[in-house]
Amino acid sequence: MSHNTFGHLFRVTTFGESHGVAIGCVVDGCPPRLSLTAADIQRDLDKRRPGQSKFVTQRREPDTVRILSGTMPDASGKEVTTGTPIALLIENVDARSKDYEEIAATYRPGHADYTYDVKYGIRDARGSGRASARETASRVAAGAVARKVVPNLLVRGALVQIGDIAIDRKRWDWDEVGRNPFFCPDAETAKKWEDYLDGIRKKGSSVGAVVEIVAENVPAGLGAPVYGKLDADIAGAMMSINAVKGVEIGAGFEAARLSGEENADEMRMGKDKRPVFLSNKAGGILGGISTGAPVVARFAVKPTSSILNPRKTVDRYGNDTEVSTKGRHDPCVGIRAVPVGEAMLACVIADHYLRQRGQVGDAVTWPFPPSNQ
Amino acid sequence: MSHNTFGHLFRVTTFGESHGVAIGCVVDGCPPRLSLTAADIQRDLDKRRPGQSKFVTQRREPDTVRILSGTMPDASGKEVTTGTPIALLIENVDARSKDYEEIAATYRPGHADYTYDVKYGIRDARGSGRASARETASRVAAGAVARKVVPNLLVRGALVQIGDIAIDRKRWDWDEVGRNPFFCPDAETAKKWEDYLDGIRKKGSSVGAVVEIVAENVPAGLGAPVYGKLDADIAGAMMSINAVKGVEIGAGFEAARLSGEENADEMRMGKDKRPVFLSNKAGGILGGISTGAPVVARFAVKPTSSILNPRKTVDRYGNDTEVSTKGRHDPCVGIRAVPVGEAMLACVIADHYLRQRGQVGDAVTWPFPPSNQ
Amino acid sequence: MSHNTFGHLFRVTTFGESHGVAIGCVVDGCPPRLSLTAADIQRDLDKRRPGQSKFVTQRREPDTVRILSGTMPDASGKEVTTGTPIALLIENVDARSKDYEEIAATYRPGHADYTYDVKYGIRDARGSGRASARETASRVAAGAVARKVVPNLLVRGALVQIGDIAIDRKRWDWDEVGRNPFFCPDAETAKKWEDYLDGIRKKGSSVGAVVEIVAENVPAGLGAPVYGKLDADIAGAMMSINAVKGVEIGAGFEAARLSGEENADEMRMGKDKRPVFLSNKAGGILGGISTGAPVVARFAVKPTSSILNPRKTVDRYGNDTEVSTKGRHDPCVGIRAVPVGEAMLACVIADHYLRQRGQVGDAVTWPFPPSNQ
Amino acid sequence: MSHNTFGHLFRVTTFGESHGVAIGCVVDGCPPRLSLTAADIQRDLDKRRPGQSKFVTQRREPDTVRILSGTMPDASGKEVTTGTPIALLIENVDARSKDYEEIAATYRPGHADYTYDVKYGIRDARGSGRASARETASRVAAGAVARKVVPNLLVRGALVQIGDIAIDRKRWDWDEVGRNPFFCPDAETAKKWEDYLDGIRKKGSSVGAVVEIVAENVPAGLGAPVYGKLDADIAGAMMSINAVKGVEIGAGFEAARLSGEENADEMRMGKDKRPVFLSNKAGGILGGISTGAPVVARFAVKPTSSILNPRKTVDRYGNDTEVSTKGRHDPCVGIRAVPVGEAMLACVIADHYLRQRGQVGDAVTWPFPPSNQ
Repeated sequence: MSHNTFGHLFRVTTFGESHGVAIGCVVDGCPPRLSLTAADIQRDLDKRRPGQSKFVTQRREPDTVRILSGTMPDASGKEVTTGTPIALLIENVDARSKDYEEIAATYRPGHADYTYDVKYGIRDARGSGRASARETASRVAAGAVARKVVPNLLVRGALVQIGDIAIDRKRWDWDEVGRNPFFCPDAETAKKWEDYLDGIRKKGSSVGAVVEIVAENVPAGLGAPVYGKLDADIAGAMMSINAVKGVEIGAGFEAARLSGEENADEMRMGKDKRPVFLSNKAGGILGGISTGAPVVARFAVKPTSSILNPRKTVDRYGNDTEVSTKGRHDPCVGIRAVPVGEAMLACVIADHYLRQRGQVGDAVTWPFPPSNQ
Repeated sequence: MSHNTFGHLFRVTTFGESHGVAIGCVVDGCPPRLSLTAADIQRDLDKRRPGQSKFVTQRREPDTVRILSGTMPDASGKEVTTGTPIALLIENVDARSKDYEEIAATYRPGHADYTYDVKYGIRDARGSGRASARETASRVAAGAVARKVVPNLLVRGALVQIGDIAIDRKRWDWDEVGRNPFFCPDAETAKKWEDYLDGIRKKGSSVGAVVEIVAENVPAGLGAPVYGKLDADIAGAMMSINAVKGVEIGAGFEAARLSGEENADEMRMGKDKRPVFLSNKAGGILGGISTGAPVVARFAVKPTSSILNPRKTVDRYGNDTEVSTKGRHDPCVGIRAVPVGEAMLACVIADHYLRQRGQVGDAVTWPFPPSNQ
Repeated sequence: MSHNTFGHLFRVTTFGESHGVAIGCVVDGCPPRLSLTAADIQRDLDKRRPGQSKFVTQRREPDTVRILSGTMPDASGKEVTTGTPIALLIENVDARSKDYEEIAATYRPGHADYTYDVKYGIRDARGSGRASARETASRVAAGAVARKVVPNLLVRGALVQIGDIAIDRKRWDWDEVGRNPFFCPDAETAKKWEDYLDGIRKKGSSVGAVVEIVAENVPAGLGAPVYGKLDADIAGAMMSINAVKGVEIGAGFEAARLSGEENADEMRMGKDKRPVFLSNKAGGILGGISTGAPVVARFAVKPTSSILNPRKTVDRYGNDTEVSTKGRHDPCVGIRAVPVGEAMLACVIADHYLRQRGQVGDAVTWPFPPSNQ
Repeated sequence: MSHNTFGHLFRVTTFGESHGVAIGCVVDGCPPRLSLTAADIQRDLDKRRPGQSKFVTQRREPDTVRILSGTMPDASGKEVTTGTPIALLIENVDARSKDYEEIAATYRPGHADYTYDVKYGIRDARGSGRASARETASRVAAGAVARKVVPNLLVRGALVQIGDIAIDRKRWDWDEVGRNPFFCPDAETAKKWEDYLDGIRKKGSSVGAVVEIVAENVPAGLGAPVYGKLDADIAGAMMSINAVKGVEIGAGFEAARLSGEENADEMRMGKDKRPVFLSNKAGGILGGISTGAPVVARFAVKPTSSILNPRKTVDRYGNDTEVSTKGRHDPCVGIRAVPVGEAMLACVIADHYLRQRGQVGDAVTWPFPPSNQ
């Protein structure tokens, strides 16, 4: 991870500001001959698109993606990747910069306004510029490519908590996720959130949330022993999403409360000669390397700091003042973080899949014959 | 982060297995002319050293570090860095490999045994090889160098929870941290942990913990806008420590429960013409960039999986079996993770300090005069 | 250098195929508050643009660049960089794909046709796809940004040899470079080349060339001791340009013939308390680190392999066949490599300038006072 | 390439100064289960070892290598790699630092003395410290590991020119290389060099040389399209060797003189259904990607600047002075560069072999069936 690039073999570089000409990304290192069309990417982008319910920002962006390079029709006419960089472009359409004029010189508490200014000595205040959640559309686009890299990879996410209200995990239903405006896997909780968030929205306030992402069909053996651990890269990837303040794998912080007996997932041989884990406290990762069980990551999203209530702050000339935000915003920015988290997990897994194939080549034959080592 | 290397300008590469000849690291990119002696590094290593109380592994390693390169006496005779790679070597002394013979072919649940085997087709079972917490001595050594890079940087850590028993933050006393065998900042809680952990140790069990690391005097402006965010790199660094399952910055997962009003830290001009944050929910980082407030990171350490009670597992030939661990281990591996977390935070901050100096050069003059931009 | 990204702190990622929608690049890590407009970039692009004389390809591309992100007006209304990624886009206009249909399945000797196919199992045959010299427009655009990074940096290039005809260095005149269609610094040689190359063009043949790039005002101290040497990065950068087969620094291959006495540049103190080198066999670099003298790099460009004369080859199905190339091409592709070489040298120097500032900070005070070390 | 690390998947980090405690390297990313013993590495080191003839430095270093990590016995007792970092250590034995005392404050022309000082503000003058050719022992050690990575890879080098005297290529005999003290493939030229170099040695002077490295059995398809080209990485690798001033691939600078017809290697189908190139002007690389023909790289080594004759220079306090070098040195440092060049080429090819396997996986089926694409 360096500047605006992410990944080692499957590498994503994003660019663009909220109210600039366009945003986009370059996906480099993608394997050749994978089926890929703009529609594949659009499908994921549409899940993240603003303006789809009253619980997200009302900015109207079609988020139409164009593939500028890196694909062509194969012999059968199917669009496939060529192995060269895939450039993806999304034009900005509905940018109302005047909303931001009055806060251009005033730092909104909880925002990146002050830190960008003190770092660079200049900042694009229009829609928070590069610090806007709009940048995450580029990540979602890249993630759609990443999903193609690992055979049968299934990466799905859900919102599991808004404010104090968490879902009931016994009612988890993946099909429900697409039926409500919250990506909530529990229909009853979704209903509660509707009223709860409506109240927050009307007050001009905001609230935090917790997102859970699950990746299935992740081959065992992905990761690297020390710094390039699979979970280390997942943690970095999730924390790099706007407004994220915490990341967990498997049992996460709950693991601090457990005994060694409770925490260690016991193993038994399964039907297909692969070990089965009798629980998944590890979240699919041991020693930084995937176990073959589902990879489970969770992250906390803080409430957006764009709120109507005036707050104490300073301006860029060093004066005490107050500020409130009048632009269009998400009362719970965690909602739209679900497809972003999916994309980031897909990118990390794709990268490690290629890295493992690079270092070790064909999969190790396991179980080993009794004569082996 | 790639394989066994960490950092972009301040780069650390570690090597070595638990029961091999030696462990160590190469620190590359360190600025020249910083005072550095083996004693500076030894001081930090001694805090992590095993065998210092009955609550940590009884392995007796002196962990004596040698500087192989990268320093020399300056004109005044003081040992300083030269800007070239600093190689640090720690020999392994007390390696009892026979402890591990019987588990060489059997996977301990919760350990990296299976994942290393399925990844590489071979693994060093002696003391868990590369997956051993012994590797973290190299990190602590590198961290001692990192602390020299940023002027006045103060990085301190403490254990804030063992199992269900958390400290009382009102009693936080940094001086207390050095007085008990737990790095606990709260004397009363330290006493409770003593009995609690003794019980766990005698049962041959283990328990998890939460560690908190605080960095003071971190200049505002460190970080990068999207993937190379300061918090993203901290999250990756902490999650790369053995047994860590969750990472938080500032309010962390608690932020999910807060309203925008509660979460956003208000600002006022301070006496030295720098803004003062009236709270620090952000943990010193906004938009991936340091605010100048203390950087606060917390991580959850799972209970070590080396326990006496037999557990269901499989062996490397695909047979169901049971295993218990008889080697020397930590009942709460989180204790010795405190100096490791300090080292990793110091390394991340040192790296970003150099990166910021590279991209932006001399600090931006702030507050800006009214004519500016 | 990795895939399609180049540089460590000043990082350039390019994308795009010759006959695709567009080509372009993302420049990441650029310092903020540098003056930058599309016109600055266009000026350099216009030097490389095809169709400007009969000695280069007749493809008519306006090569109009758009800045998609990373700049904004400052307080005075001047467009400046913001420190965030600068995305540059150049649309392809005059792509005649039908020219290439017949060679889609036949490998042109000396071209990347076979190697792309055997690597990826698919290739974009239209205009050589990603392997086209068209990609170098993105490099020139990035180089225009790089030139802004180092104060007073002056990077200029010239063609010093076509086929067997080399310039007379005694007649070197930088002003002449802009007056002939060859970037030739010697008016007399330029005249000879005109006839010589016209003959080659009419035969449907091609010829190689040698390009020399000189960077002035490069601060002493840029580089890194072992692998990240300034000359190592220059060599990689130059060799990464299409059709380049050799790179030299300073005396280059001639150094093999010299004695130690002849080769080592003697030093004397200059008027400004900086050492003066009495010669520049080193080409401005010693031990991988810049000396402060002009950095001089030279590279050999092979003749383009797109020629009218039929040549023996094979097709992608393993049949022996013959091929000749009918598309529009450069009889001497080395000509347009001059601005590309300038751009690459500017990028390498900009990157090392930021790296040096990162690691060492403010320049070392030299000469040292007698008390020092 | 960054600082002291080289490679992307197969990564080498070196450390150590000429007269420090030890030198060495960490090889990270090596595939597991490759046979590797210290003897394998020692064999290559012994070729580079000083003191073996009167034509190289008389320093007596046994250059005994120890493997500190990353290998273990497999089931059959054979030492193999484990996939974790391989740390290699070579202690310095015969370091006569007093030889260097008088030049500690005086810059030797043609040496890195001034540039290190002006970069870092401090330098290890003993034996040139990090800038010493002694560092190349670490590269040779790493190269011995790299040779194991690519099946059947054969990397051999030879000295093809000393001063003005080049070999006669018609007499090239690989077996001759091991029979003379110059790695010369032409017995007659070796005899001429003996007298010639003896004269230079007795005068206390030095002379340059050209080295050629050839890699056979390099699979077609290694490389990356733009910046990560195989030849770009080779150029950077070779230029990163001490004293190298020029690098060529295949026809190299001679390509500038050729016509398109002469330069493009024609193709015919060979017996094993692979294309055969009827010549190898390309040096085994087209478009940055290997063709399957031998990879041929050549580099020019300047004369060492450590000569007895006094030369004009300045000291670190800004005074004009003179200097001559009395330490032990190589009259032709190019001789011992042969095994170093071999090692660097092996490392680059190993890295790209893993990168290709990562991105593309199993080799593409070629020739393609007629229905394909």
